[in-house]
Parts: sequence; C-alpha cells; structure tokens
Amino acid sequence: MKNVLGLRCIDCGKQVPAVAGTYTCPSCGKTGGIMDVEYDYKVINQLTSREQLAQSKDYSIFRYMPFLPIEPNSARPHLRVGWSPLYKPQGLGKSLGMSNLYVKDDGQNPTASLKDRASIIAVIKAVEEKAPTVAASSTGNAASSLAGSAAAMGIKSVIFVPSRAPQGKVAQLLIFGATVISVQGSYEDTFRLSAEAIERFGWYNRNAAINPYLVEGKKTVALEIAEQLNWEVPDWVILSVGDGCTIAGVWKGFKDLYNAGWIDRLPKIAGVQSTGCCPLVDAFVENRPWRPKEENTIADSIAVGVPRNPDKALNAVRESGGTMVGVSDEEILAAMRELGRTSGIFGEPAGVTGTAGLKVLVEKGVIGADEKVVSIVTGNGLKDVQNAIKAVGEPIKVEPSLKELLVKLEGKV
Amino acid sequence: MKNVLGLRCIDCGKQVPAVAGTYTCPSCGKTGGIMDVEYDYKVINQLTSREQLAQSKDYSIFRYMPFLPIEPNSARPHLRVGWSPLYKPQGLGKSLGMSNLYVKDDGQNPTASLKDRASIIAVIKAVEEKAPTVAASSTGNAASSLAGSAAAMGIKSVIFVPSRAPQGKVAQLLIFGATVISVQGSYEDTFRLSAEAIERFGWYNRNAAINPYLVEGKKTVALEIAEQLNWEVPDWVILSVGDGCTIAGVWKGFKDLYNAGWIDRLPKIAGVQSTGCCPLVDAFVENRPWRPKEENTIADSIAVGVPRNPDKALNAVRESGGTMVGVSDEEILAAMRELGRTSGIFGEPAGVTGTAGLKVLVEKGVIGADEKVVSIVTGNGLKDVQNAIKAVGEPIKVEPSLKELLVKLEGKV
Repeated sequence: MKNVLGLRCIDCGKQVPAVAGTYTCPSCGKTGGIMDVEYDYKVINQLTSREQLAQSKDYSIFRYMPFLPIEPNSARPHLRVGWSPLYKPQGLGKSLGMSNLYVKDDGQNPTASLKDRASIIAVIKAVEEKAPTVAASSTGNAASSLAGSAAAMGIKSVIFVPSRAPQGKVAQLLIFGATVISVQGSYEDTFRLSAEAIERFGWYNRNAAINPYLVEGKKTVALEIAEQLNWEVPDWVILSVGDGCTIAGVWKGFKDLYNAGWIDRLPKIAGVQSTGCCPLVDAFVENRPWRPKEENTIADSIAVGVPRNPDKALNAVRESGGTMVGVSDEEILAAMRELGRTSGIFGEPAGVTGTAGLKVLVEKGVIGADEKVVSIVTGNGLKDVQNAIKAVGEPIKVEPSLKELLVKLEGKV
Repeated sequence: MKNVLGLRCIDCGKQVPAVAGTYTCPSCGKTGGIMDVEYDYKVINQLTSREQLAQSKDYSIFRYMPFLPIEPNSARPHLRVGWSPLYKPQGLGKSLGMSNLYVKDDGQNPTASLKDRASIIAVIKAVEEKAPTVAASSTGNAASSLAGSAAAMGIKSVIFVPSRAPQGKVAQLLIFGATVISVQGSYEDTFRLSAEAIERFGWYNRNAAINPYLVEGKKTVALEIAEQLNWEVPDWVILSVGDGCTIAGVWKGFKDLYNAGWIDRLPKIAGVQSTGCCPLVDAFVENRPWRPKEENTIADSIAVGVPRNPDKALNAVRESGGTMVGVSDEEILAAMRELGRTSGIFGEPAGVTGTAGLKVLVEKGVIGADEKVVSIVTGNGLKDVQNAIKAVGEPIKVEPSLKELLVKLEGKV
C-alpha cells in the first residue's frame, strides 16, 4: 500500500507503521478507535484525479481505490457496494422548508445498509492477512453485511448474537452461510465470548470501532457525496450516531479530499441520536467527557449506551464546527413517514434519525433554509418492518362494495 | 413520442395509434396483455447508439430513453430505478458446475424488486395523461413499487389489498403515503372493487398485464444485461414467471435490441414456476392452452393461478426456442440458501425461483455447463423474512463460556 504512510494515534499523535492488528496505540497504550490511517496525498494524486474519476466506469467504492488502505491487487468480492443514489427530493425539501436539500439513500447497498462499506473492506483485509474466517458480535447491520461480504468473498464468517436476537435477523445471517452462535446471556456476555473466541481462533476481527480500516470503508460515502455534487461541498452533512464510526468516517472522507486538494472547504457535520440513548449528544452539549447511558429507543442500530468510537465521533463534530442534537422516538417515526410520503424512501428508524434531527435544527435556525444540506439515510426500512407498523396508521377497511367505498373515501382522494 | 409507431395486437396483428388507455385491441376485441408497443428503429438509431451509451452517466433505466414509450421531456421521479448489478459469482458457478454464470440482482432497486421498472413508467404515463392518482390492486411488489414511485413523483396512489394482506406489507404502503383500502373479502373481490373504483374515479390503471407500457419498463432489465455483457448476448436468460409480464418484458427487450441492429442474435428464454402453481409451465410442457390452477406455493409473488399475461409469456419462451420448468418449494428454499451462502445475494422465494429452475435444467442437460447464462433475481429477501426463516436451520446455542463454545464448534469452523 504505497498510498498509506501509516497509522496515527489521534490521542498522542504518534505515527506507527500500518501493521496488521494494530488496534492499540503502541506508544501511549490507548485503545478503542484511536488509530487513524494516514495517506501520502502526493501518491494519491499520482494515481488518480477528479478528471480521471469522471471517466471511471466502476460505480462502487472501488472507484476510489487510491483513497483506500488495501493492496491494488487484493481479491475483492463481487458485491456492488457504494455509489448509492444522492437524491434532491423536492417534496421533502418543501415539507422542511429547505431549498437545497439532498438525501443520500445508503439503504441501497447489497445488504441494505451503509455498513456494507466497512464490511467489504473487512473481508478484503482478512484475505490479505490470510485469515480464512471473519468474526463479529452484533445482531444488526454490521453482522448481516459482514456475513454477506464474506459469502461473496468465499470465506467463512462467525457471528455471535445474544439469545434475544430477533429470528428474522438470525435467519438473514444463516442465509448468508454464517456460523451463528446464539449466546444464552446478555449482549455484554456475547461480546466477551466473541472476544475470547476471536483471540483463541485467530479470526479476523470486524469491529469498526477498534479496526482503523473499517472507518476508511465508511468514508467512501463522503467521497461519493462530494463527487455527486460535482465537488461542490455541502454546508452540512447530517446523520445518525451510535458507536460513532460512521460519522467519523464521513469526516475522514472530507478531510482526505481536502488534504489531497480535491475540495476547497469542509462541511459542518451534524450528529443525531435518540434522546432514549444519547451519550454523545449529552457530552457534546454539556462539553464534557461522555458517560454511559441506558439503551431505550426504537432505533436499535444506534442504541449504543457505551459507544466504542466516541473520540473520533466528537472530534468530527467539533473540528468541523458542527453540532449534535437528540430527537424523540416519535420524531424518528415521523421522519420515517415524512421520507416515505414525500420521497419514496423507506428508511429504518436509525436510518432516518438524521432526517429527524435536521427538522429540529432547521426549526431552531441552526441550519439555514437555503443552506446546502445532505441527509444520509443509513439503512433500509425493510430491515425493521415492526417499527414501520408503529409509524403508520391503519388502512381504510371496506366491504367489497363500491357504494361503501365511495362513502369511506369521501374527501380522501 | 416520435420513436413510437403505435400499438400492435399480438393476436390479430393490427397496428393502431398509441392512444392513452388502449388496453383492448380495437380491431379483434381481444384484451388482457395483448397490445405491444412498436418502435421506429430508425428513429431510435438517430437518437442513440451503443457508442453514445458508453458515454452516458445516467445509470438508471432512463439511459435507454429512446427505447421507452415516454415523452422526452416528461417529468420523472428522482428514484434511481434500474442498472442493478450483474454479478459473476464464482461460488455459485462452482456449486452448479457452470463456468459462465451471471446473476442479475434486481432486488437492488429502490423498493427492492424488479417491479420498480414498471411502476416508474406507470407514474410517468399517469402524469403525461394528467391523472393525479394511480391505482392498483395487489399486496406484493407491484403495490409497494407503485406507492414508492408515486410518492417520489408527488402524485397520489390508491392501493387495494385483501384483508388477509400481511401487516408488514400494508405498513410499507402506508409509509409511502398510499391510500390503502383493505377489502374485507377475497383477492377476487379486491380486484373487482378496484376495477370499479378505477373506472368510477378515472385513476391511472397500473396493471402490468393490460397496460402495454409497463412491459416496456420491465424490458430495461434485458437492455442492461446486454450492455453489461458488452453486447455479447447470453445463451440463456432464466427467471421466475407469475402473470408473465416480466418474462414478456425480457423478451421484448432483446427483440428491440435485435431489431435495432444492436445485437446479432437472441437468447433462449427459460421460465420457471413453482409446481404449487404452474399453469404456464403445464401449458408449455403439454403444448396446450393454459388452464387456471390452485395457488399453493411459498413464492407469493408468482402464486398466480390465473395469469394475466399468458400469451406474451408463452410467446417469449416459444419464439426464443426456450423452455419452462417447475420446481418444488423445497427447491426454492434450497436456492435461497445457495445464493446466500455462495454469493451474498438474498432473494425472496419468487426472486430465486429462476435459480432453482436453472439447477434442474443444468442437471437435465437442457442447459449446458459452459453456456453463458443470466439468472435474474427479481426481488429482495428482506421482503419476506418469514420464508427465510423456513429456509434456514437454527443457530448454535451456547452458554457464555469459551469451554462450551470450543466443544460445540468442533469441526464446524
């Protein structure tokens, strides 16, 4: 990887070689999402340019190969990850009173969430490092995307889930041929057992928070936004926050483009959590270190009381001059309806939490009605139909009679 | 539409002008998927070419505008429909003993099925014809795709569902802001009431079988396959069949390309149904007219005992020198597992029925191991998680103890 200079600790600033498995800073000893991939931007600019990209027919994250920490000739799964559509939905703009609003629908990925961007990097790195098996503990999008990418790559995946994991999500993992281990205990038990087993078996660890390469996959969403907007950087990018890896990836993407000289300014980054579980919003608003919180929200993909990438997440917001805000579950359900009704976009609760926060920030005047804003929808609503049912009302019930129908429809169509 | 010559009755051969609402042949009086859009291929070739397409950056069905029966300046919804990925999954090829196998994953569409290709045309035609409302009776992919496209277009949709429709599918329709009418009766009651209401209110009729324009949307899947294979036509295209509109669309797409001189031969088309509901397979195999059948299969999207586009479907198979085959529900569930495990593709039962049939036809020697084959997956498995649960087994249950895990995993990872 001649484009990669090394890994830098975001805490003590030390740069170390990009050696496999460097998840803890060898200098200061700090761990947990602390290492950042550093690039040689001169090399990147020798390998690619905005003009060359305009000729590229690779509409996936791999159009940005020189910005990725993988060997040029590494094997890659066939799945088409990335280049999700960036829409300018007039109906939603009107509804929020905004003239320059874009929605990036990242539910349009092979396993229907943004997490595919990280998981495909995980399996590529696993094969580079000759690990025949990747592992993770999760019931959510990280798990299904890892299992999907592993299947496409032809390697094994082992997924640890707590016994309470919904049957549907377990089925999706099994469809992808994962070895699924249902741990008869809490999520904490599950995570601990997975860590022990990963160490025991030497499986490749897909944990976006500690593995610095996965944030690099996630950053491609920012590269795409910039290119899809013809390199005119938006004023704001807004999205939901759980562990903090995705928001960190978005910020890293824009910073890499800026440092490579491809864009001339940086956007502000807004992070949104549910008020039912918002340790990072509280830390930001009260300007203090984060503290664990209860996990009490329908937005399960971001119900993270102990975020595993808090430093990079808070950095992204602070460095960018952005903001954070909490929204209620009711506001999240309203955003699901609003996106669906006005734009034909069906997001899961955590997927639309950014849009719910956007509404609040526009109403408060923090985000101006004419500012150029990109709201990222991070996951597809088909992943969580139960909550869609909560978001909507009942259909109109009629007997099979036109006469009755006419009465019931009066004023409605 | 200077590219459109008119509509031709596939039964009596009469050509008539392409006037809105021509769903019945004005000459012979036959109805039900009988009219076909005819193009002026000279005009198409003035407007576009293979070389021009290679420069196009519109990666949606609208890159093929000159092949579509819509006005060039008609308003279009923002949704990115089409240009779904065409994979060459090595694992699946190996598993089926095939060297030249491609999978077109049409579950990668905005509402997660191939039906988006037809529904987006429906809403464009509705607005061209100044109809403020589109309507359909369906609980499946046609309904959700119509509701999604209508929301993106900013027009109303009215969907009739039988009372037995699953809550999740109804929720998806309501999310897209559709007026959902739950008819307290059978599907037949529902269809009849919708027909009466469509006539009474003058809503635009989204019925792929009788509306000739919708097949034109579906045909874009064939145009994409040809272009993605660099205009080298496959030996076979194989897919599932319900009403018969999609297989008719695939054949129409290849014929249009052939008639325009863009490809030099035509593929054979193979249609697959579940043996639990296979009126068209029976008609083909026994070489007789089709007869209604019971609807007894898990593949709900193709559980059509009275197909509404039988003539065009059987024509596609016969004219192309193709074939039809029935597969059991067990074979469909096995195909779900096989596609997931080997390729990271999660299809719904009806979506993978083509792949199940491919396995049978290869085993029988009807399709050769080295022939170039494209298997179309028509819908995403997230639409029907209940059947995914049927397809897979149980996870491995362990107490949170590494010791127990080591015992249970022995020989498995």
